[in-house]
Amino acid sequence: MFRFALPTKIIFGKKCVKEHAAELLTLGKKAFIVTGKYSAKLNGSLLDVQEALESIGISYILFDQITSNPTIDQVRTAAQIAREKKVDFIIGIGGGSPLDAAKAIAVLATNELDDQQLFTGPYAQPFLPVAAVPTTAGTGSEVTQYSILSNANLETKTSIAHSGIFPKLAFLDARYTTKLPKRVTIHTAVDALSHSLEGYLSVKANTFSNIFAEKSLHLLGECLPYISKDPTLQIREKLLYASMLGGIVIAHTGTTAVHSMGYSLTYFKGIDHGRANGLLLAEYLRYLDVSYHEKIQSILQILQMKTIDEFAAKMHHLLGETDTITAAEVKLFSEKAAGAANISNTLLPPTEQDLAAMFQKSLKFVS
Amino acid sequence: MFRFALPTKIIFGKKCVKEHAAELLTLGKKAFIVTGKYSAKLNGSLLDVQEALESIGISYILFDQITSNPTIDQVRTAAQIAREKKVDFIIGIGGGSPLDAAKAIAVLATNELDDQQLFTGPYAQPFLPVAAVPTTAGTGSEVTQYSILSNANLETKTSIAHSGIFPKLAFLDARYTTKLPKRVTIHTAVDALSHSLEGYLSVKANTFSNIFAEKSLHLLGECLPYISKDPTLQIREKLLYASMLGGIVIAHTGTTAVHSMGYSLTYFKGIDHGRANGLLLAEYLRYLDVSYHEKIQSILQILQMKTIDEFAAKMHHLLGETDTITAAEVKLFSEKAAGAANISNTLLPPTEQDLAAMFQKSLKFVS
Repeated sequence: MFRFALPTKIIFGKKCVKEHAAELLTLGKKAFIVTGKYSAKLNGSLLDVQEALESIGISYILFDQITSNPTIDQVRTAAQIAREKKVDFIIGIGGGSPLDAAKAIAVLATNELDDQQLFTGPYAQPFLPVAAVPTTAGTGSEVTQYSILSNANLETKTSIAHSGIFPKLAFLDARYTTKLPKRVTIHTAVDALSHSLEGYLSVKANTFSNIFAEKSLHLLGECLPYISKDPTLQIREKLLYASMLGGIVIAHTGTTAVHSMGYSLTYFKGIDHGRANGLLLAEYLRYLDVSYHEKIQSILQILQMKTIDEFAAKMHHLLGETDTITAAEVKLFSEKAAGAANISNTLLPPTEQDLAAMFQKSLKFVS
Repeated sequence: MFRFALPTKIIFGKKCVKEHAAELLTLGKKAFIVTGKYSAKLNGSLLDVQEALESIGISYILFDQITSNPTIDQVRTAAQIAREKKVDFIIGIGGGSPLDAAKAIAVLATNELDDQQLFTGPYAQPFLPVAAVPTTAGTGSEVTQYSILSNANLETKTSIAHSGIFPKLAFLDARYTTKLPKRVTIHTAVDALSHSLEGYLSVKANTFSNIFAEKSLHLLGECLPYISKDPTLQIREKLLYASMLGGIVIAHTGTTAVHSMGYSLTYFKGIDHGRANGLLLAEYLRYLDVSYHEKIQSILQILQMKTIDEFAAKMHHLLGETDTITAAEVKLFSEKAAGAANISNTLLPPTEQDLAAMFQKSLKFVS
């Protein structure tokens, strides 16, 4: 038995924002653009969106104050403006942070919710529609129903998961990713890898989600040798496509223990989200290999690798020197991860001890 | 550049109608069930739907008068009843004929249209939502925006193609296909094959639609040896899944010359739709092989076949003795096909002479 729904219209290709601007008219007449301070200005995506909106007579408000790992306060501030300005829809431009923020703003623009209700509902009002313009190849947020925010109350990252926040439109133009710093290219590609790999190994994986996971893993395997060396636009397109496929995967399978664990590395140690996952992936494969050897082998085969050791070496090569972790951190992070919602998607749900062991083996343990 | 949208929520698996009945509540409180006279009663699908509706308090009107290759008059009659009874949504149960009829009824229930406008619009009012329950593994209509009707005015089959008739819900339970006569199993499977093969060879094929086409072709290749020998439920599930994937393909690529040609074989000679396509496929591959040898080779490889001759032999084995065609028929059908809308999706659009040659080689020519 499987269920599949993908309410996002995907438009992929060079100049797609300009050439398919008219699609935005289906969302309303006044837009609220949500983005970060710099990158959307540098990579041309913001200008493309502004010109597209002007060409079809849609007015807009620009909110460019989203930081990495956006907080609840940030999205509240933005939603307040969206509400006052009576916008019809939200356009998120950027990496995972602005896209996830855009979705949370779409929820808060029409609903009065306290910090807990923001994540759990009930949501009395329909959300504002969202259009997403990713400028990194990793998050897949343009095709998911998730918005992940830093949650100071729970000291971790927490998800809104609701079909109402699937973007209605996603515009994917790999040109926006060509100026990404090497570090960001690597970390985001590893995030995409993590999505497809975890989705393939989720208890919710099914014959349909696996089509996307396998294709995504195959393409990422092809791209990995190139991502640290100023990838061509062709490779960038492949990465963006693969990361979108990874988004479709986790929209249906959820993420698993790797994300549960990675959130602490990001929340407490400021490690980039994709990097945090990447540091943990090899040990996660080893952990599952004992009980699910065949599945792990098929992932390695799709990635054109032979062993988990080879996978670990490639991750290490990409991510460089491993970050450190203390005994106290291992204890705290394992506790947090054991209580995370997505841990139950793991084929073999790890105990707190299993999690501690994975943390300790994945990072440089300093006592 | 590609665009992808699939507004259908897909629910696939044994007893999915019963277990996910509540999904129907999102479509309204009064349903209009559209089906044929017998098969939905014999295979249990109608009863499952009726029980599901009763379990969630949705009332319904049953219209069970749809025949093979439904006509405009048939859907007008049904739409009139749907209108009078003020139903909220349509449930199509059956093979391609009831599903396509259900979609046309959804259009006519809210719009006053003459025979031509039915196919071209403009459509002033939004259509009623449709839920689809396929009981053959071939049409893919449960995930497409097409409704194909016999059109006596134009003496062919004509399509409504509009995103508003994508079913909102599709319930796929292979148990409904287990009692299909051998002939129907074969013809519908060949229809699915035709969709994925034509979609892969369409000028509108793209990297995303090809994911579905390749998977579908692969599964159909695996199933072909079993479909004439009372297939197991497992094979039936694979066929139903592959035919759904084929539907997703043609929703994005359209069909090509094979369908353009097949419509005449069905309209004038009463040959089953899937069979009509199947008779033509091998010569279509030969026709394209001259200019697109690599693509044809990759299709054969996915199907686990070596040559077009092998493909032709397998089709012949499945379809049995070839139907006849006269010189007058070749002339008329080639003219009709040359004027069909989907002919332009063909990688190398055939001339009327090319079409005549394909007809003549595909059927038993009697002068």
